[in-house]
Amino acid sequence: MSADVVARLVAELGDRVDTSPDALHAARADKSGHAAEGLPLAVVHAGSVSDVQAVMRIASETATPVVPRGAGTGLAGGANTGAGEIALSLRGMDRILEVRRDDLLAVVEPGIINADLNAVLAEQGLWWAPDPASRDISTVGGNIATGAGGLLCAKYGVVRDAVLGVDLVLADGRLLRLGHRSVKGVTGLDLTSLVIGSEGVLGVVVAATLKLRRLIPGEVRTLSATFPDVRTAAVASAAVTASGVQPAIMELMDATSLARTHAYLGLPAPAPGAAQLLVQTDGPAATAEADAIAATLVASGGAVVLAADEAQAAHLLSIRRSMHPAWETAGTTLIEDVSVPRSALPAMFEVIADLERRYGVAIPTVAHAGDGNLHPNFVVPGPEVPEEIWQAAGELFQAALALGGTLTGEHGVGVLKRRWLADELGEDQWEMQRQIARVFDPAGILNPGKVFTP
Amino acid sequence: MSADVVARLVAELGDRVDTSPDALHAARADKSGHAAEGLPLAVVHAGSVSDVQAVMRIASETATPVVPRGAGTGLAGGANTGAGEIALSLRGMDRILEVRRDDLLAVVEPGIINADLNAVLAEQGLWWAPDPASRDISTVGGNIATGAGGLLCAKYGVVRDAVLGVDLVLADGRLLRLGHRSVKGVTGLDLTSLVIGSEGVLGVVVAATLKLRRLIPGEVRTLSATFPDVRTAAVASAAVTASGVQPAIMELMDATSLARTHAYLGLPAPAPGAAQLLVQTDGPAATAEADAIAATLVASGGAVVLAADEAQAAHLLSIRRSMHPAWETAGTTLIEDVSVPRSALPAMFEVIADLERRYGVAIPTVAHAGDGNLHPNFVVPGPEVPEEIWQAAGELFQAALALGGTLTGEHGVGVLKRRWLADELGEDQWEMQRQIARVFDPAGILNPGKVFTP
Repeated sequence: MSADVVARLVAELGDRVDTSPDALHAARADKSGHAAEGLPLAVVHAGSVSDVQAVMRIASETATPVVPRGAGTGLAGGANTGAGEIALSLRGMDRILEVRRDDLLAVVEPGIINADLNAVLAEQGLWWAPDPASRDISTVGGNIATGAGGLLCAKYGVVRDAVLGVDLVLADGRLLRLGHRSVKGVTGLDLTSLVIGSEGVLGVVVAATLKLRRLIPGEVRTLSATFPDVRTAAVASAAVTASGVQPAIMELMDATSLARTHAYLGLPAPAPGAAQLLVQTDGPAATAEADAIAATLVASGGAVVLAADEAQAAHLLSIRRSMHPAWETAGTTLIEDVSVPRSALPAMFEVIADLERRYGVAIPTVAHAGDGNLHPNFVVPGPEVPEEIWQAAGELFQAALALGGTLTGEHGVGVLKRRWLADELGEDQWEMQRQIARVFDPAGILNPGKVFTP
Repeated sequence: MSADVVARLVAELGDRVDTSPDALHAARADKSGHAAEGLPLAVVHAGSVSDVQAVMRIASETATPVVPRGAGTGLAGGANTGAGEIALSLRGMDRILEVRRDDLLAVVEPGIINADLNAVLAEQGLWWAPDPASRDISTVGGNIATGAGGLLCAKYGVVRDAVLGVDLVLADGRLLRLGHRSVKGVTGLDLTSLVIGSEGVLGVVVAATLKLRRLIPGEVRTLSATFPDVRTAAVASAAVTASGVQPAIMELMDATSLARTHAYLGLPAPAPGAAQLLVQTDGPAATAEADAIAATLVASGGAVVLAADEAQAAHLLSIRRSMHPAWETAGTTLIEDVSVPRSALPAMFEVIADLERRYGVAIPTVAHAGDGNLHPNFVVPGPEVPEEIWQAAGELFQAALALGGTLTGEHGVGVLKRRWLADELGEDQWEMQRQIARVFDPAGILNPGKVFTP
């Protein structure tokens, strides 16, 4: 049966079907450090919409599960492909189909890397705002599938705010065009928003119409503020938010994260226990805003360094952007992604400190402090996450929920967080979401076992 | 059977159930000038979530259709309630439950008037950005149900961009809590976005968590530019958009609209054929931006008046905001609401001129020129829209679609635009949307015949 599926794929798609051991092994994993069990049947490197439709038709007719994949940089296992499944790679569909400077939109294929798209847009004075930390390695399609956030969200929004429409191939191979090219539009139900963040369970995004911004004029100001401990840093970040000055970026790194990243980059070790805020301001009032934020941070007990030039600014920012690579080699990491109202950031750091004490583990944490999104990391030595760590993660999530927050701010549910999905949604909503997914994919062949528990 | 339903409502809800002729007649209509056939069974003035749940349980058990209503200011007939139906008014649920200045959010009941909410928020230096022309008379719940837009959308977004979560009562009376209080959140499918703009066919919104902004500091600059004809004005507005300067408001009124509104307000008649752009800029660069826009408009053939003070600015703005009241007394109006990419605005005005010639009718038109949303009005003397006018409207819509636009930018589909819904969505997507609605409301008792043709 499996051999028959691969034979049909090869007959229709030729050398786009890859069954080399390297390709099959690579498709099992993403950047979470987790991997699916077993080897996929094949990796199909789609080059066109009709390739995607052909794969889905064969999969439908043979009841074969399909896992859509971009660059494989996910952090929740959402694109991991295992035994009996087809990995459908969109990475090769990376063309920019259209850029309209007057209408502030671009139409792109899903496989283009976020940073590559923005490099082209910048030549025309344009910019697609979603800015995940993975922007140099993640695709626009992956950003859409996860509803990605990033560093600039409080000021410039998330993916949901920056997509006007998507073309979606359904499980049975039909193509739907969702959304429109206009700024406004309320014709029928907003299926474009429903697809954003749906993690491959509704269909395969084969093109997207993106809402662009003009590049922000003026210089960017960058500063770092070092605090004796993470709690003081969290209170300081909440003070900045409450002051009414809107930073473009405000990132928090706790002591463990800061120390490891310094070591990874070969920098001198920070003072023991020291935590850091990294702040950027932009736009016409960048300098005045940076000065105001610096004053707030000093008043909150921070030692502030204002970058003197672009090189120093880039250096400060590189420390934050190196956080995930620095931990990748440490073992298996369970990356949490809770998000809470901004005022609750200090409370969440207290929860984390309490968990560290009670479970006897370190939970190195970074946070997009400007928007209340925390990434506490559970690092374990072996390939398996012990049940005790899952328990600690569960407590962390319940605390976020109690504060009005959510299980995942920007990484998605994938396989690593599906066990808690019903806790947040409630059984009624969980069941309705399953039924809605079945409207798109009645047989459940698209990314089965992701988001929803089987 | 109908008497039995009313009796059960009265037994459970007492004097919240209104069967007075005035109330029943009022519930038949909205501000579109159209009315449902026959008289509703009753109007229920809900005062609490449990009132709403009680109505829905009784309606479910008796298979009685329910039409949720706010202030009845819709322009597509979406809340019109007819024979055999219950009008469920949320207007009395108008409390502000919470305002968080630090987290930039508010939790409100659906019946609060947009402008009333903003008056309270302004005292705290806050603001909910959605700004429909009806803001003084429309409810937040109605704004959410239609996915309302307004005048400020190109710069400050639409309702979809400004809602974090909603509480939704389902057809069977169960309460779902959708969304969260954090800036980010991608847990499961985005049902909050699905509810925004769903026009009462998925459930009854009984509370909303709104994303607020801080009031924009600095003064607002207002200017008007008068052009010899509407085509010149449309080209000028596209030139402003293409110049890269972002106005907060840019409204276009054609000659017929401008003349009628002047007459309505008792102002001197404008020059024959004259069309007008109204522009506002705000924020720290408001004056520089107003000057730059004025230069672009003068270069495009406009006669520019820059408001010298707030009184003059308010006067200029009142002309635009009086447009709908000015037409309300003219007969039955079919208000179109097409939205196109901004660069296509001049092309849409050419389509309208062509339709006027070919059908021998005037189509007075205003446009949110900054975001490409046009309101061409078909005004007919009697209560019925002749088939020929429907045909002209159909041609208008097909032209918008061909330009990458949409049937409705901000008013919704209601009953007046449902005949074209499948043309835009395609049969496959239309059918899927129906099925998704059935997941929420299996028996189809919520606002039947709206959005989707029966």
